[in-house]
Amino acid sequence: MKIWRVTGTVVSTNRIAMMDYMPLLLVEDKPGGSPMVAVDPVGCRKGDFVLCCGSSAARDATGTKGYPSDLTIVGILDKWDWESK
Amino acid sequence: MKIWRVTGTVVSTNRIAMMDYMPLLLVEDKPGGSPMVAVDPVGCRKGDFVLCCGSSAARDATGTKGYPSDLTIVGILDKWDWESK
Amino acid sequence: MKIWRVTGTVVSTNRIAMMDYMPLLLVEDKPGGSPMVAVDPVGCRKGDFVLCCGSSAARDATGTKGYPSDLTIVGILDKWDWESK
Amino acid sequence: MKIWRVTGTVVSTNRIAMMDYMPLLLVEDKPGGSPMVAVDPVGCRKGDFVLCCGSSAARDATGTKGYPSDLTIVGILDKWDWESK
Amino acid sequence: MKIWRVTGTVVSTNRIAMMDYMPLLLVEDKPGGSPMVAVDPVGCRKGDFVLCCGSSAARDATGTKGYPSDLTIVGILDKWDWESK
Repeated sequence: MKIWRVTGTVVSTNRIAMMDYMPLLLVEDKPGGSPMVAVDPVGCRKGDFVLCCGSSAARDATGTKGYPSDLTIVGILDKWDWESK
Repeated sequence: MKIWRVTGTVVSTNRIAMMDYMPLLLVEDKPGGSPMVAVDPVGCRKGDFVLCCGSSAARDATGTKGYPSDLTIVGILDKWDWESK
Repeated sequence: MKIWRVTGTVVSTNRIAMMDYMPLLLVEDKPGGSPMVAVDPVGCRKGDFVLCCGSSAARDATGTKGYPSDLTIVGILDKWDWESK
Repeated sequence: MKIWRVTGTVVSTNRIAMMDYMPLLLVEDKPGGSPMVAVDPVGCRKGDFVLCCGSSAARDATGTKGYPSDLTIVGILDKWDWESK
Repeated sequence: MKIWRVTGTVVSTNRIAMMDYMPLLLVEDKPGGSPMVAVDPVGCRKGDFVLCCGSSAARDATGTKGYPSDLTIVGILDKWDWESK
């Protein structure tokens, strides 16, 4: 799993029905990095450092079997900073 | 999910039967970036910023179980621009 | 799906039984780019621009359920050139 | 499988229930490389060079069918160093 | 599938039970490139140019359903060299 920081949210009104209403968060993997969108079943806040799971595991990790996600937050890191590595 | 912009369409007459007639859109992840082709079950227009799902989730997200896709549009962003990040 | 150009074929006599006798084509994603090998269930010729499907979808797209492929040609583009993007 | 070195651990108290209590280790693929987080079903120590499995195989490799992982340690290398390659 | 050259073997005594005793080979995708480890169900020798399958297909390609691999050799190329492309 890669470590990301939550930077905001996105809204997509016109989306496939399977996506339902799960929160979609913007995340970045370094300060100012290209934004990605992750499904959030945990309840994160802006600034949280999170672990995201990709690949086929991203689907069930949302809590909904077969959910259409390729990036899902699976946990918030208790302590982290870009300089921690 | 990654954020892409729709730039056009492609046509492939000679294709495998499993692909059926779903629309295939050209998308780019930055202005002038390398084009990719995404399956569109949503109904997008040129210029739309969209979320695309890859990995195994791209298949069912088309609305057809087991469809041969590795990149499928799952939603149109209400508001986005390259500078939004 | 990514866009590739067919540049030739490869032969692998000593291969796992599951691979059977499907054609294996060399493809490149830009002129002179690193070659990749794609399974061809469509019947392509050298110079064709093709769409290839990766991820788990590459397997069934060959027409044989569970075929060992991570890159399979799913269609030939009617019109394309590197400069088209 | 890629070769990684174990550099430490991470703690995520607020995580999805499916993650249970498996150890999460920080790994790097070169000295000072970007850290990734791998699930450890083997019992590794800091400094160990390990093989990690990604893709859908990362799930069952944890020993728990369908576990939400996209990077799982599957073995410790008996002998390795960055210069070994 | 990507083309790799076999450069040696690795040994991992302490590994998960699911890995059993299949040979693990070091492969590189260009001279002096970063080494990866591939499962070998074919029987390759150092110097062989091989096709490796990744993604979920890497698992069954080993010959053992659900084997924990994300990179498996599926064939030896009859004729290849880095300059062949």
